[in-house]
Amino acid sequence: MIKITLPDGTIKEFTKGSTPMDVANSISAGLARNVISAKFNDTVVESVTALNEDGHLTLYTWNDTQGKKAFWHSTSHIVAQALEELYPGIKLTIGPAIDNGFYYDVDFGEHTLSEKDFPEIEKRALEIARGKHDFKLHPVSKADALFLYKEQGNEYKVELIENLEDGTITFCDHDTFTDLCRGGHIPNTGIVKAIKILNVAGAYWRGDENKPQLTRVYGISFPKQKELTEYLEMLEEAKKRDHRKLGRELELFTFSQKVGQGLPLWLPKGAALRERLENFLKKAQKKAGYEMVVTPHIGSKELYVTSGHYEKYGSDSFQPINTPKEGEEFLLKPMNCPHHCEIYNARPFSYRELPKRYAEFGTVYRYEQSGELHGLTRVRGFTQDDAHIFCTPEQLDQEFKNVIDLSLYVLGSLGFDNFTAQVSVRDLESPEKYIGSVDNWEKAENAIINAATEKGLDFVIEKGEAAFYGPKLDFMVKDALGRQWQLGTIQVDYNLPERFDLTYKGSDNELHRPVMIHRAPFGSMERFIALLLEHTGGNFPLWLIPEQAIVLPVSEKHEKYAEKVLSSLENNDIRAQIDARNETVGKKIREAEMNKIPFMLIVGENEEEANTISVRRHGGEDLGLISIKQFTDLVVTEINSTLKSFK
Amino acid sequence: MIKITLPDGTIKEFTKGSTPMDVANSISAGLARNVISAKFNDTVVESVTALNEDGHLTLYTWNDTQGKKAFWHSTSHIVAQALEELYPGIKLTIGPAIDNGFYYDVDFGEHTLSEKDFPEIEKRALEIARGKHDFKLHPVSKADALFLYKEQGNEYKVELIENLEDGTITFCDHDTFTDLCRGGHIPNTGIVKAIKILNVAGAYWRGDENKPQLTRVYGISFPKQKELTEYLEMLEEAKKRDHRKLGRELELFTFSQKVGQGLPLWLPKGAALRERLENFLKKAQKKAGYEMVVTPHIGSKELYVTSGHYEKYGSDSFQPINTPKEGEEFLLKPMNCPHHCEIYNARPFSYRELPKRYAEFGTVYRYEQSGELHGLTRVRGFTQDDAHIFCTPEQLDQEFKNVIDLSLYVLGSLGFDNFTAQVSVRDLESPEKYIGSVDNWEKAENAIINAATEKGLDFVIEKGEAAFYGPKLDFMVKDALGRQWQLGTIQVDYNLPERFDLTYKGSDNELHRPVMIHRAPFGSMERFIALLLEHTGGNFPLWLIPEQAIVLPVSEKHEKYAEKVLSSLENNDIRAQIDARNETVGKKIREAEMNKIPFMLIVGENEEEANTISVRRHGGEDLGLISIKQFTDLVVTEINSTLKSFK
Repeated sequence: MIKITLPDGTIKEFTKGSTPMDVANSISAGLARNVISAKFNDTVVESVTALNEDGHLTLYTWNDTQGKKAFWHSTSHIVAQALEELYPGIKLTIGPAIDNGFYYDVDFGEHTLSEKDFPEIEKRALEIARGKHDFKLHPVSKADALFLYKEQGNEYKVELIENLEDGTITFCDHDTFTDLCRGGHIPNTGIVKAIKILNVAGAYWRGDENKPQLTRVYGISFPKQKELTEYLEMLEEAKKRDHRKLGRELELFTFSQKVGQGLPLWLPKGAALRERLENFLKKAQKKAGYEMVVTPHIGSKELYVTSGHYEKYGSDSFQPINTPKEGEEFLLKPMNCPHHCEIYNARPFSYRELPKRYAEFGTVYRYEQSGELHGLTRVRGFTQDDAHIFCTPEQLDQEFKNVIDLSLYVLGSLGFDNFTAQVSVRDLESPEKYIGSVDNWEKAENAIINAATEKGLDFVIEKGEAAFYGPKLDFMVKDALGRQWQLGTIQVDYNLPERFDLTYKGSDNELHRPVMIHRAPFGSMERFIALLLEHTGGNFPLWLIPEQAIVLPVSEKHEKYAEKVLSSLENNDIRAQIDARNETVGKKIREAEMNKIPFMLIVGENEEEANTISVRRHGGEDLGLISIKQFTDLVVTEINSTLKSFK
Repeated sequence: MIKITLPDGTIKEFTKGSTPMDVANSISAGLARNVISAKFNDTVVESVTALNEDGHLTLYTWNDTQGKKAFWHSTSHIVAQALEELYPGIKLTIGPAIDNGFYYDVDFGEHTLSEKDFPEIEKRALEIARGKHDFKLHPVSKADALFLYKEQGNEYKVELIENLEDGTITFCDHDTFTDLCRGGHIPNTGIVKAIKILNVAGAYWRGDENKPQLTRVYGISFPKQKELTEYLEMLEEAKKRDHRKLGRELELFTFSQKVGQGLPLWLPKGAALRERLENFLKKAQKKAGYEMVVTPHIGSKELYVTSGHYEKYGSDSFQPINTPKEGEEFLLKPMNCPHHCEIYNARPFSYRELPKRYAEFGTVYRYEQSGELHGLTRVRGFTQDDAHIFCTPEQLDQEFKNVIDLSLYVLGSLGFDNFTAQVSVRDLESPEKYIGSVDNWEKAENAIINAATEKGLDFVIEKGEAAFYGPKLDFMVKDALGRQWQLGTIQVDYNLPERFDLTYKGSDNELHRPVMIHRAPFGSMERFIALLLEHTGGNFPLWLIPEQAIVLPVSEKHEKYAEKVLSSLENNDIRAQIDARNETVGKKIREAEMNKIPFMLIVGENEEEANTISVRRHGGEDLGLISIKQFTDLVVTEINSTLKSFK
């Protein structure tokens, strides 16, 4: 008999050789139907893997990230079989699951795969899936494995196997197909009900441009056809809302090859939008007792040796900046915390003066490979809405609650109602992994969990996910397309106060170590604006949108009245322009719609006579003839309904 | 006879061999009394140098920078004589004039010069001066010059002479003293009426730390004793107002060895002050039609190769930043213009859309040797209140006027009433030095001169002082201590539009080249705040000062009323705090005075009963018992008297 510990802590006994599926069956038939993969003592296993010792078991279904990975990785085997059948002689290399689906890198020889080939591949793959073939993982000797692939002339697999140790090599069979594979499969092909080949791209073998170029076939699969349909619709919508496309159309930002990849240039409308976001947060932060500071974008190497960043990230970062003489070395700052520690260190503090809350919209630079760059979400330079709170251990509880309040205020004001939180705590079984006293860790973890509970957050606790220097809370936001984004980490830190020798004088007149909290409700201005663009499709909340209204004179003779309307709007702090081009009102309305302007104010004969405006909302709703006062009241009311004052 | 052209263009004839002093005498006896140095065809000459050919002559008096330089350089000869007499066997090296006075670098051998030696040196130097000895410059052969200093065992002078060409070497004699010297002296020692040795410092021979260390003796001299007294008083006052000292005391900024030299860290009060200054300018700029943009703090090498900065400054700058792989090279941005050119280039423009005015508080990084760094006035990272205007040549005139308006608004709102301007134009005799068409240059120079005239500026035109890429206007501001600072350049640029191939479509449907104007009314936030600190001694204009008022409860029982007062002030946007420490009101007033807080609001029994406050102004004026409303009105009135709205 073996003892199996389940995630909720219950321990059950099974005969040696039982499988995860047996465990699932022992719990409920429903669970067993849904189990598609499992983890046994930190190793991914198949649902049919025999368990021969005591251990911790986690069962995965389609609803778990790990379950989806097994599902998609298994589909890559099915697609590989289809490809081999349709294009005999091709050489398969690797086929992993990714965040959304899977890919398989294939050497197609002379053949060039294109979109028109996709339906045939999907059709054959689905036929294979319907065969309900079991995935069977079995060990192979290195010699046998090499023999097989040498015979096939597949130098890629040969190279992979040569780097493996004899005794650790497994193959996975299903139907007529065999592949070198470490495991992590669903029980059988039959549960894959929908398969879509998404696109193909070039990819170098092992990511090395000196090696042969392969064809990367991207795909995705689902347990229900309906889910695939929804996913494809979402992809279509996401394409329309792609922040790179909207950013260009709305003239928010641009990139320049000469300035450099991954370094956004903010155009006037985008810069103004950013500033509104910053001012919004500054105002709330001021009320919450934060103080703004300003620090340089470089720091000497010594600063990062002190903080520990140099040792950890040095060689993967932008390389040091040397001075012409003097032999000094500086680094582009990858984060603001070391600078803020030096500000704290600029003078002594008494416990009576804490907490100190230093905030900065600090622009930081982090190297990313050019292939990894993506619009505003993966850049090489970005501005964090950063702040560091230095407090006594006793103040941590209250400070953490205050930060959650501020984060919830930010999410609410920007229309994100759909979010959860994750609390990352220590792995109690490996205390050696963590810096700081056990007492402080307990205090901090309790502070976070209490705060999250008291504030009514929907949160999960992830054991062992804390950083070595402290526990944290992450907000996970779902956007309008149902995609999950990590936003706003609140991180407790015992490490930097130690490394920078930060102190305060306690009521006992002795020096003590403060605790630090890192927090950034937006995360980065760049990524947040990208998210906001994709979440709203460019229809930003009224308080934030670049142009709130546009005045459309019906003809040239109403321009003067249009100017009068505009100046009334400006006096009421409404951002507006006049479209005085010699075009039809119909065309002007169409373009204003494209430009996502919330209100179109049409002014002609009738409006001028009655001293009114005809108001049309973005999307088409007609608000009729109203006075300018009525309109400005409407705007103010609408803004106040989303943008409340903090506290 | 020779023809001498004077600065005003008049040409006079003199016999060959006439001296600048003869020319002065021919103009007026008064001028001749004051002439102390001269420039003949771009070469500094003595007032007694014989002129043997036609040429341009400028006469200098004490009121000219060049006159002062001759005066101070001559004094260094006198002081050197005194030192040789007082410390026989010392070795003289070099003794130039500097911006304020002069120095002489001396090898004192075993002797260590200290402050207690200064009076004796001054006394002897003054005795020599009173001897009214003529300065006599005369040529010496290289062999004779080397012989003299070798005999004296002065290896420094020997080294200097060895690097000179035979036939170009001159000595200058006065009294019993002789020195190797290129010239630029006053007629005789007698006009030096006051000499002060200011301090001594170590200095390496030729600035090279591997060479012997010398003693640098700093001094200054004046034609009147009264001027020295005033200068020393000014130095005393400047010491009190030193922005480094005030910045520390008022907790505005700090430096950290770990972050790096010359990289200021802005503390909360300083960051808030900066932000108020930025918001003040942003508001005016918005009205003036500027649009804010945001650009990164690095740019690829290619950007600076395009702009020409790489070739010109590359090796003296912070060195390039390499990426871990990919072989890319980036540079810290030393200016914002190349980035703004790329923003302009992001889309095509029609003449109807110009001018475009892109503004950014852009932080730039420029390498300075650590020995050159000084507080906030000489730093390695600073934020420019930068903007670039892209306009048609026809718009240049109006745009230049607009920029002057904005600059005058900035100076006025910050209490600088004492300023002049300098217009730098081409040297018409060397047209090959300049880029851009003659026609455009004429237009631009006229535009600047017209604008300066129309706006009633007190300005001088400096021929040949324009940059190769365009003419400019500089504002020169005198601070409260009478010191001159250069502030706010407005620079026309024909070069970058060419290099970045900037265009707009004209009314003729053809592509044309826009003109660029660079401008920064503050110059840099860091330097401007330093200037403002030294100009005001920390007593910033009321609208700008960190704390406008402090509430001082007489005893603990009035704290609650003090809170009430504070909250009224905050509701009226007055920045204030309460000093609730258990100290006497007298001590609290003294500290508030030290902290330069404009208003002290004392609240005790009487005040609480009458719902009033006792107001004391910084400096001591008693405004008596007034209501909070009266006080807030007073503050608003005072602010409005300096801070007007732009336009």
